[in-house]
Amino acid sequence: MELIETLQWRYATKKYSSKKVADDKLERIITAINLSASSFGMQPYKILIIENPEVRKKLSAYSSNPQITEASHLLVFAVFDSIKQDTIKRYIELIAKERELPTESLKVFKERALNGLLLKSEDENLIWTTKQAYIALGTGLIAAAAEKVDATPMEGFDAGHFDELLGLKEKGLKSVVLLALGYRDEVNDSNARLKKVRWPKEDFVITIK
Amino acid sequence: MELIETLQWRYATKKYSSKKVADDKLERIITAINLSASSFGMQPYKILIIENPEVRKKLSAYSSNPQITEASHLLVFAVFDSIKQDTIKRYIELIAKERELPTESLKVFKERALNGLLLKSEDENLIWTTKQAYIALGTGLIAAAAEKVDATPMEGFDAGHFDELLGLKEKGLKSVVLLALGYRDEVNDSNARLKKVRWPKEDFVITIK
Repeated sequence: MELIETLQWRYATKKYSSKKVADDKLERIITAINLSASSFGMQPYKILIIENPEVRKKLSAYSSNPQITEASHLLVFAVFDSIKQDTIKRYIELIAKERELPTESLKVFKERALNGLLLKSEDENLIWTTKQAYIALGTGLIAAAAEKVDATPMEGFDAGHFDELLGLKEKGLKSVVLLALGYRDEVNDSNARLKKVRWPKEDFVITIK
Repeated sequence: MELIETLQWRYATKKYSSKKVADDKLERIITAINLSASSFGMQPYKILIIENPEVRKKLSAYSSNPQITEASHLLVFAVFDSIKQDTIKRYIELIAKERELPTESLKVFKERALNGLLLKSEDENLIWTTKQAYIALGTGLIAAAAEKVDATPMEGFDAGHFDELLGLKEKGLKSVVLLALGYRDEVNDSNARLKKVRWPKEDFVITIK
């Protein structure tokens, strides 16, 4: 399927059927998300895959989206609540290992990362990490559609309670956005039949020739 | 090309050749970006395509990225600096027209949008609109790679000066992120040969079964 068709096919699914997403499809969606671009390439977030129905039920008390319990899988994008010296050190070591380079050769990159990231306030860090997670959300939406898996990006949830229920604080993480995955209930999801609406190109694009 | 291969192929291009991106390819990249998901489906941003070399040269004074002038095209993602009653009205009218519905049938949706969006402070609005633009950035990166067009997402620029040079304030817009498009200079871009580094899955994914 061509990318534009893939994007035309997807929509924010409201009502899911009980059909489950197969493991290999989920794996490819996660692989695609993992390959997303990010500032410094650092991907300052993790993906939680919530399968447990009890946990999903508890989470659903803190969101008005029925997809939390009804979709096949629920992904939680959770950002690093701060960038620590150790995070940068681990990342530099990973690069050195993967690229078979001496750690010292990454000194300039390390300095830049330390200067750019350690100096951020908690609020600035949350904004920056969340932006990186949203690039990955964009990837996840396309990756799901490429697998003909329906998806719903969701911002409407109480992040504080999600973090508490998922033990994210202890992990140094904060939930920032959700992605439900599954299969549309074509009969009962009225959204499935709605025409996609986008700003017309003449309103959306400004060309400076 | 499969999505995962497409994502493996792309990298943040440092050094571009002088080869230009063809109009039809650029058009498909823009179409894909326009089809990106967003909260309320509202896409509170526009895309500027900067072709003019004089403008690009002026902009380059406010970024240390040589791609600003060297890439084939420069895209500027610029968000709505506030959501006004009129923005929501225009959007509702667009939905009504596209879906051939009476405007009144969108009353509940309109109320939700008004309550959710008009109440945001200027800072909250910037954070929210920027997140939506980053979903589109994620789409743009994939769309470029799907066309075998190289790309560089860039956060390092002085947004205030960009806004001034591009007359964005008068348009009610604020630049938030850039995307250079073009073709890698394979010989002179050492990044082109670097192995892609990502957190291993066991560090990146937490499954709650």
